Amino acid sequence: MSRKQMVRPGGRSARVQASVHSAVRELLAEVGRDALTVPMVAQRAEVTPSTIYRRWGDLTELLSDVAVERLRPEGEPEDHGDLRADLTAWAEQFLDEMGSGSGRAYIRDALLGDPDGGNAGRCSAYAAEQIDTILSRASGRGENTPALEETMDGIVAPIMYRILFRPAGLETAYARRLVADLLDAYEESAR
Amino acid sequence: MSRKQMVRPGGRSARVQASVHSAVRELLAEVGRDALTVPMVAQRAEVTPSTIYRRWGDLTELLSDVAVERLRPEGEPEDHGDLRADLTAWAEQFLDEMGSGSGRAYIRDALLGDPDGGNAGRCSAYAAEQIDTILSRASGRGENTPALEETMDGIVAPIMYRILFRPAGLETAYARRLVADLLDAYEESAR
Repeated sequence: MSRKQMVRPGGRSARVQASVHSAVRELLAEVGRDALTVPMVAQRAEVTPSTIYRRWGDLTELLSDVAVERLRPEGEPEDHGDLRADLTAWAEQFLDEMGSGSGRAYIRDALLGDPDGGNAGRCSAYAAEQIDTILSRASGRGENTPALEETMDGIVAPIMYRILFRPAGLETAYARRLVADLLDAYEESAR
Repeated sequence: MSRKQMVRPGGRSARVQASVHSAVRELLAEVGRDALTVPMVAQRAEVTPSTIYRRWGDLTELLSDVAVERLRPEGEPEDHGDLRADLTAWAEQFLDEMGSGSGRAYIRDALLGDPDGGNAGRCSAYAAEQIDTILSRASGRGENTPALEETMDGIVAPIMYRILFRPAGLETAYARRLVADLLDAYEESAR
């Protein structure tokens, strides 16, 4: 079970997490990842290093935690009035954000310091929630939609796979094509 | 450019790589990843630590290199006489191997110590070569086949995405379904 679930909002534990996370974000910007150390973070966050080791285990787990927070979507996906437009806009933005230099760094951090896989699961859950919102909205309009898992496999998985394993020449057009292929195949099969 | 490309087969450099790689594999089995250190590997491989730092940079890059070697397919994909059978057997084996405890550990190692993305690219190239062999074999039999990239997106990407981000409940039936969905949609569109 991930440490985050032990955090009581508003409690001391939540305040410590907030100050440690912002100390990491500040120091990443100031000194960079390679120079970052737990004592440095502890000093900036005004906690003891042992507080950090106790809660996060080590620096890579702390960086993973901070990365997942940065990968959390900022709001609901935009509503463009139909499923194809909504998914296309979302997939383009997802590829641009995740495929950017900082996006890749956060994904790597999230995966690396993640012994129990909980942080990687949170990244995936963020994408699933956004797509679920888009699909539910479309059903609400009376549109037929592919299933959530099918959409994750058809759009999210290929984008993340390429970002991690084959980043060369990854372009927004790729996201558009994935959405078109998924929906064309779905409509074909629904006929 | 990755260090591996500077290795001349049979030369001293190749002998050093071979002995360092086998030292790492032995020590991973004996003492485990957490206890592993560069001096420990150097002593076992009978090279100086500086030789290792010079060639691999650090332990995570060395582990990444060793992991990619372990992820290299051992031979050609089996020939079951038709595309659907070949892809299904390959995808089932790929999921079983990559999704196993050691498979996941190697994939993580390969991704982590991989600043230039070369090792992740090699993992992906291994899968692409195997699938290309299966597709070419099918074309040779006169079967129509989806494109290589389409097949990577439809089978390899979802399997690797789930292994890294949503490993819970990942079963062989999932690999079979991905192959069936890809080929059904392809045949549908080819009509």
